[in-house]
Amino acid sequence: MYNFEYKNPVKILFGKGQISKLNNEISPDWKILIIYGGGSIFKNGVYAQVKKALEGYQVTEFGGIEPNPTYETCMKALDVVKKENIDFLLAVGGGSVLDGTKFIAAAALYENGDPWQILSAEEEVRVTRALPMGTVLTLPATGSEMNGNAVISRTSTQEKLSFGSPAVMPVFSILDPETVYSLPDRQVANGVVDAFVHVMEQYLTFPVNAPLQDRMAEGILLTLIEEGPKILKNRKDYNAAANFMWSATMALNGLIGQGVPQDWATHGIGHELTAFHGIDHARTLAIVLPGVMNVRRKVKEKKILQYGERIWGICEGTPDERIDKAIARTVEFFETMGTPTRLSYYGVTDSTISKIENRFALRNTLLGEQNEIDHRVTRAILADRL
Amino acid sequence: MYNFEYKNPVKILFGKGQISKLNNEISPDWKILIIYGGGSIFKNGVYAQVKKALEGYQVTEFGGIEPNPTYETCMKALDVVKKENIDFLLAVGGGSVLDGTKFIAAAALYENGDPWQILSAEEEVRVTRALPMGTVLTLPATGSEMNGNAVISRTSTQEKLSFGSPAVMPVFSILDPETVYSLPDRQVANGVVDAFVHVMEQYLTFPVNAPLQDRMAEGILLTLIEEGPKILKNRKDYNAAANFMWSATMALNGLIGQGVPQDWATHGIGHELTAFHGIDHARTLAIVLPGVMNVRRKVKEKKILQYGERIWGICEGTPDERIDKAIARTVEFFETMGTPTRLSYYGVTDSTISKIENRFALRNTLLGEQNEIDHRVTRAILADRL
Repeated sequence: MYNFEYKNPVKILFGKGQISKLNNEISPDWKILIIYGGGSIFKNGVYAQVKKALEGYQVTEFGGIEPNPTYETCMKALDVVKKENIDFLLAVGGGSVLDGTKFIAAAALYENGDPWQILSAEEEVRVTRALPMGTVLTLPATGSEMNGNAVISRTSTQEKLSFGSPAVMPVFSILDPETVYSLPDRQVANGVVDAFVHVMEQYLTFPVNAPLQDRMAEGILLTLIEEGPKILKNRKDYNAAANFMWSATMALNGLIGQGVPQDWATHGIGHELTAFHGIDHARTLAIVLPGVMNVRRKVKEKKILQYGERIWGICEGTPDERIDKAIARTVEFFETMGTPTRLSYYGVTDSTISKIENRFALRNTLLGEQNEIDHRVTRAILADRL
Repeated sequence: MYNFEYKNPVKILFGKGQISKLNNEISPDWKILIIYGGGSIFKNGVYAQVKKALEGYQVTEFGGIEPNPTYETCMKALDVVKKENIDFLLAVGGGSVLDGTKFIAAAALYENGDPWQILSAEEEVRVTRALPMGTVLTLPATGSEMNGNAVISRTSTQEKLSFGSPAVMPVFSILDPETVYSLPDRQVANGVVDAFVHVMEQYLTFPVNAPLQDRMAEGILLTLIEEGPKILKNRKDYNAAANFMWSATMALNGLIGQGVPQDWATHGIGHELTAFHGIDHARTLAIVLPGVMNVRRKVKEKKILQYGERIWGICEGTPDERIDKAIARTVEFFETMGTPTRLSYYGVTDSTISKIENRFALRNTLLGEQNEIDHRVTRAILADRL
């Protein structure tokens, strides 16, 4: 096991009815900005629950954070934060709203120029201060509710970049599984696939003798495989919703990745597909992961074999045959959830692969647990998924 | 799954060499009291590492916290805290030193009379303030390094009582697996058994459809079963030490117990055996747990069968036969670790069972996940272990 440092002070309030406890977590003296997305919170009753819990509070609202939150929109929210002297940000929505709010929280206390510097690779800036924020999660998927990471897109340059800091960990996150009841199929599928791939990126590398981390990761994978189809079939299965929601949080609150190598190539490549074609984040992961598994089968051999055996019961055949089967079962799971896994489904052709290849070559991008995935390997991975 | 609230802000610094980072975690302006136990830290080099890391700091020391930390000794430490105007407590040792330090931390800011009130059931007091504390763990076992619980004994009344508060969660805990190298067999065995039973107390109850919590619990059990004998055989197996240490922390940092029923009858009964006979805490658990499993087999049936199948591969036979086998394998594991599981080994007879029965009857003690273990059931459990 590698050395590690881990601290996760996010307070989780989990279960039905927990939104009503919002006022226990926020000082009545604070000026609050509620940040939300496209307005689904008005239809599913979450907005009404939040407003009721915050009766008597000084509340301003900002809506319209996009599914891939943009720098441009976040900067508009920042204007409101400054104009209204906001003390506390309350993100109400899915991972995109939460990520956008993290960027706004950091940008609000950033004093060295354009907050884009927080994200841009050339001038990466360490965020040490941010406005305090809380979240009411309405879409299990990204794990953003219990970590300090955010991904932001810039429309003008077709870029999708991330930053991370303990300063933007939510003070609290409310996870009410009943918010899942009104989600469309596609968002449920995206959430399950996103969480699944988060686990895979921290698990499917090479062994470092960390059996507990492995088993916790496998526990999340098995739970998502069992509960994902249940919640897709019956949106009001409370236990399936709860298990899906808790699995998505545990998939990316940092715990299973402590003391082990991590990959994240699937995310790095997937972000480019979103940037160029607007494909849903989770759907890009379902495309790219099988390609990473196939092209990187030698480096990942031991862990893919363990994954095949413990998750899918694949014990027969040569290592290569078992790896083929493990990839096939993974693809089948994504497709069963209604998530396409081929670039062709989206009309993405070799010309996009060339664009990504060139961008990675220019940036000297190196991905994967051993920094061996350069622009050429990236081409091979994407070509495998045409 | 049940509703839950969870927050664990303890910062973990895990791995070899991490003690040297102590000075990053403690303000140089603070007056520090180092609290330790019987002096093993002088032999294993931990004291020297701590002192080196704290060069230039204002440090006072207090040694002699017992294996079952007593109120009487903690009150002596409290005198030092007050006399020296201590700002920060640094516990260096095993779970007993950590538990004692938590009590001292709470007692230091307790203003309503005798700090014994923090522990005594009649006048249980909610602890909301405590001196800040950190820990350097030298014995994986209790999980005290990442929770807000402590167990304290009172010599004069032969009582062993506990308290819990977020206020006594350590600010940080340093977990260096190399501290395991110098532990005697008995302490390694105790640590493995203690951690194992902590998991069982949160797992072996009744199903509430919380598959991820189950799998995380099972992951810890399997890891302890694999790594326990390894570290017992070769004390300098770093990976086995690291996996044992991380498993013990994860067993009782609260995470696996979220959203599920919890038992703790084994601990409640075990504490009495320590109070009356001074038997090591972990050894009392190894005695009592098989009795709880046997006597409570109906209430726990579904989970014992799941435990038998997933942990020991027991799939054949009637439910009762499978439960018998699961209990037998559990006993065998404890005995393999060198931990006796019968009261007779310690010369404990029916007269002690009567004393415990009478004490529980007087106190109206009700234990277990459904509060159904009264003094009569307690007698049956202990009689099963003579």
